[in-house]
Parts: sequence; structure tokens; C-alpha cells
Amino acid sequence: MSQPYDRIFNFSAGPCTLPVEVLEEARDGLMNWNGAGMSVMEMSHRGKAYMGIHQATEAALRELAGISDDYLVLFLQGGASMQNTLVPMNFLADGQVGDYVVSGAWGKKSLEAATLMGRGNKVWDGKATNYDTTPNLHELNYTAGAGYIHITSNETIQGVEFFEDPSLPAPVVCDMSSDILSRPFDVSKYAYIYAGAQKNMGPAGVTVAICRKDMLDRVPSGMQPMLDLKLQAENESMYNTPPCWSIYMCGLVYKWMLANGGLAGAQRRNTEKAGVIYEAIDGSGGFYKGHAAAHCRSIMNVTFTLPSDELTDLFVKEAAKEKMDGLKGHRSVGGCRASIYNAFPLEGCKVLADFMRDFAARNG
Amino acid sequence: MSQPYDRIFNFSAGPCTLPVEVLEEARDGLMNWNGAGMSVMEMSHRGKAYMGIHQATEAALRELAGISDDYLVLFLQGGASMQNTLVPMNFLADGQVGDYVVSGAWGKKSLEAATLMGRGNKVWDGKATNYDTTPNLHELNYTAGAGYIHITSNETIQGVEFFEDPSLPAPVVCDMSSDILSRPFDVSKYAYIYAGAQKNMGPAGVTVAICRKDMLDRVPSGMQPMLDLKLQAENESMYNTPPCWSIYMCGLVYKWMLANGGLAGAQRRNTEKAGVIYEAIDGSGGFYKGHAAAHCRSIMNVTFTLPSDELTDLFVKEAAKEKMDGLKGHRSVGGCRASIYNAFPLEGCKVLADFMRDFAARNG
Repeated sequence: MSQPYDRIFNFSAGPCTLPVEVLEEARDGLMNWNGAGMSVMEMSHRGKAYMGIHQATEAALRELAGISDDYLVLFLQGGASMQNTLVPMNFLADGQVGDYVVSGAWGKKSLEAATLMGRGNKVWDGKATNYDTTPNLHELNYTAGAGYIHITSNETIQGVEFFEDPSLPAPVVCDMSSDILSRPFDVSKYAYIYAGAQKNMGPAGVTVAICRKDMLDRVPSGMQPMLDLKLQAENESMYNTPPCWSIYMCGLVYKWMLANGGLAGAQRRNTEKAGVIYEAIDGSGGFYKGHAAAHCRSIMNVTFTLPSDELTDLFVKEAAKEKMDGLKGHRSVGGCRASIYNAFPLEGCKVLADFMRDFAARNG
Repeated sequence: MSQPYDRIFNFSAGPCTLPVEVLEEARDGLMNWNGAGMSVMEMSHRGKAYMGIHQATEAALRELAGISDDYLVLFLQGGASMQNTLVPMNFLADGQVGDYVVSGAWGKKSLEAATLMGRGNKVWDGKATNYDTTPNLHELNYTAGAGYIHITSNETIQGVEFFEDPSLPAPVVCDMSSDILSRPFDVSKYAYIYAGAQKNMGPAGVTVAICRKDMLDRVPSGMQPMLDLKLQAENESMYNTPPCWSIYMCGLVYKWMLANGGLAGAQRRNTEKAGVIYEAIDGSGGFYKGHAAAHCRSIMNVTFTLPSDELTDLFVKEAAKEKMDGLKGHRSVGGCRASIYNAFPLEGCKVLADFMRDFAARNG
């Protein structure tokens, strides 16, 4: 069965699949958006047309995620990588440390940035078992007086995920880059959430931050303007020209999600999608082995290995011929990874699962 | 005469007009780019399709601007505002200062960022005459041992421009955000050039840097990853996910420029376009007054005032009815500003000039 516009199933870890309806809307407005006489890419960010788009985008995200007035929404640049620097720089008092839970490659990078400033404290690290599991966050030993506790809700490379919004003894800072909006979440449990858009929300080039207002009281004075989250907030993400097109695309995705059952609908679809692939792994009699422990299997990035590197290569190659792209796993885990973010269709998961069964039967 | 797709003449200072042919190509590939089965917005930045786009974009820029192998091309995030921080942070040795020539609002911001670090030294400031002129760069008193001399080749708000690529006693760092690629320029005269894309190259969200390789030897160790230009260079602008769509759009603009006479063609068109509007100013018997001194009149941002604020408001309002948008000047200069970057059509300048003459006749 062919996809609309002869599109393929794109299992890329990010950037990744966007909803067809969203792309169609972007295409239809590309020469002249909504009678404005120009593309969204051409609009002054201070003009009425773009300001309307910007505000509607924030409003849609607030509705979708249930973000209260205690929180600001920021649209920034630089991705989660820049946030790894901004978080300790903005939110720690002199001499204070941030506690870091390292459940995979992204948590490790976050810790490294804070450690470079002498501000990172590791409270847990899954390295010994190659990040195949997550700890119980309520049983860890946190630093008394830590400025925050940093977690990565989903680790893209290893495919391990926290499914709980934790209550912890310090403000929780969460990198949600790879599972934001994939399920309902309780914003009030977090002090600061950040996420690159390019997995569950839109194209690369914009980073969304959800910031509890009191956190901005911590920002030191004398900061460089573009590193100063308080200044960004005071200027409503318009201290300088924002990445307008990427923000516009996020807005289209938010509206698409609102029209498709909101976060409860996303969770239902994502759980079913992941289930179809995990079932193919578990039913393979050991031909496929899931990387993540059962309790923390990601519903975004399904990681699994095959009996040999040769079979892995053959699998990826044959899948590509069947119009399934991006299945090669990261070298640190090996094997395969199926990234199935919000916009990835159930049908693609079924096609993959069928292919997995057939491949195992032929090569097992 | 109506524009294709019923588009208007967009005089916005940025983001701004893109070529119609470029937008058409983007639109046509939006659901499935070149048979890849996905949009450019959906491609893994590590995949073959996007890597090809990325490399072709850099190659087109190198060809267009004549960039030699002594220079690296970087595609970054954060705009010129972030560069204002990165330049002193990366290129100054302990105790060294950067010299700043402040010919307008952007130069002022660049100096402020360096001054916050205790590293900024002002060698010239046009404030006394509200930044209506530029100095002879070869006659200024620079600091002995300065790490670099920073200039802003075109000041977007005031509409003053340097038309010369200067030979100065320290490496020249240039913010070319608002006139890059508007005329042939001699890259070898600069040590570091940076420019937000959203005026002459593409949509907002990507910043292009042209960096002489030896400048990277200056980068201190222990930098935060996203602030470390050497790390960005070593990773070929892919330390983290780049703003792929904005880079792709820049590539389409570069190819469009190569097909339309390169930088010599751009200069011919831009000079003619600006001339049409300056002629309407100078021929108005004093009704319109140009802000910039004659020798440094920008060919990108034409700034002029009217006899009163009331007439200015009426002018902007009537022009908008004639499908000319974005003509209101910045409050620091007052009056009007016509931003006519590379992709802005000559016809729009003629329509504006005719309107200016008609408006002056009716209100003079």
C-alpha cells in the first residue's frame, strides 16, 4: 500500500516525520499566507500577521499541555545542547550545584556542561549496564541544597523513558526533547522543561521552554543578552528575530494534535504503535532483543538488537527497499532503533512488525 | 499591476521578501523532496539526503562569494545577537580588547556585549549626529594589540553602509547581517564575517559565519560546547541538530543568485533599485529628507523623513492600501524606511517612487 505523495515511513530519530495534513497546510500557504501577501518566512516578526501566529502558537501549546499562568512559554534557539549550558548558568546561585540523573547519552551531555562550570553533581548513572534502565527517582540520594534536579524524560539513543512526573526534594528540570507531548504530563511537577522541537513538535531550529516564573528570580545579573533567560522572557522570545517558520510549523502541529484527541489521544496512539513493535521483538523467540528493561521501554524510540552485525545491516538494507528509512541504531547501542514520534503513523509500525517477523523467519 | 500569487511589496527590514522562484521550489518539494519520500523538514540531519543539501548549500555560497579554502563556512543559530557574545568570547586572549566602530544600533549592541565582558573598546561612535554617517575607517585610532576591529557593514535601522572592504591594523570582524551578498566583496580582507540569514539569504533561524581558519587557534579551552566556535567548526556545524530547513532555503537563494548574475548582478540590481528611491527623495524639493549622508547611503535600507509625524502616518497608511508594507521607520530615526534586500524587485521600488512623488504633490 503506497503512502500519500509516495512518501516513505521515516523512522529517523529526529528531525522526523511531520503530519501530512500539517505539511499540506504549510505548502498551501507558502506563496501567500492567509491573504497576507507573503510567506510566513518573509514576515516581519514585529508585524501583525506574524505576531498573531506567534501568540496563537503559544496559546495552542498552553491548551494542549495544560500550562498555567504560573509558567512562561519561551521559543528559543540552540536546541537542548544550548539549554545544557543555559540551565546551570541561569538557575544556580554562587556555589550551588545541580543534581543530574544520567539515564543515557543526553543526560550525560547535560551533566558535562554543568561540570565544566564546576556545578554538576551526578546522583545516578546507568553506564554500567549501557543505559538500559532507569532508576526509581524517589529512592536516590540528592544533594541537600541542590539548585535543581535534572532528568531526561526520554533517552533518544538508548530508548529508556520515565513515565512518571516526579515529586522530588528540589525543583525538577527536565529535558523532554524526545517525548514532549507524547502523553499527558503534569507541568506543575516541573520547574523548567525544555525540548528541541524536531522530534514531536515541528522542524529543527526552535527550542521550546516551559519555565515556572519564580525560576527567573534566580538569573544572575550581568549575563550576556542571548544567554539570559530572564531577558528572553521579558522580551517574550523576541529579544532578537525568532525562528519564525519553525515556530509557525510547531503551531500547525499543536493544532493538529488538538484536533486529534490532545495528549490523551497521542498517548493512546503512541502506546499502541510502540506495542506493535515490542510485540514483534518479544514474540521473536530471542531473534530480536530489546535494549531497554521492561519497566522503562520508551514509546518513542524502540531499540533492539539482532543476532549479528551482518544481519543488522541486511535488515536495514531490506527495510529501506520496503520504504522504511532510518532504522539503523546508534553505534553505542548497536542494532536497530525505530523512532516513532507523535506524527509517525500506526500503519508504519504494523508494516515494520510484519517485516520483522518475515525477516526473522527467513534468517532465524 | 498585480503581483504573482497576489503578493504585496514587502519593504520589511527583516525577515523579508524571498524570490518567488525560490518559494515555488520550496513549495513543490514540501510533501516529498526530490523523491526522498519526505520533506526537507523531516530529514535526519545525518542522512544522505540532507547531508547532500547541506554540502551543496555551502558549495553554492563559496562559489557565489568567492570563499577560499583558507576560510570555513559555519551555519549556526542565535542570530547576530549571539555572535555579539561569541566573538569576544572566542577570539580574545586574556586581557586583550576588541576595537569597535559604532556606526549604528547594531554596532552599539556588539560593543555592549563585549563591554559586559570588560573587552570592548569604542574607537568611533556616530551617536552625536544620530548615526547619519560613517567614518573613514583608515583614519581612526585603533588600540595597539587589539584582538580585532569590529565593524557593521550596513546599519539596518539608520541606513548607513560601508562600501569598501577595509585593510586595517588588526583582523577585521564584520557583522554583514544586512548587506551580505548584496555586492561583490573581498573575503580575504576579513578574519570573521557573520550574518543572520533573514535579510539577504533566507528565512530567520540560521546565522552564517565565514571564519578564517587561523582565528580558531584563539579559541580558549574549557568553553561550553555550544559557545565554542572551534567545536562547531570541527563538527562542520553539526555538533547538534542544525536548523535544516533554514539552511535549505539559503541554498535555494544562493542558487537563484548564481543563476541571476552572481554578486555583480546583485550589485547592479540593488544599486538601481536604491537609486530609484533616492531620486524620489532628492527630487522632492525637501519634502522627503534622506537620513544618511550621501557617501554612505545604504543600498539596502533607504531611510527618509517627511515634514511631520502626521504625514508620515498618512504615508504609511496610504502605501499599505497600495500593497506596500513595512515602510514605517524605526522610532530612533523616525520617518520611513524602505528595506530593499536582494530579493526585493525593482518594480516595487518604482511603484514606491511613483507613490512618493504623488504623495508629495498632494501634501507638499
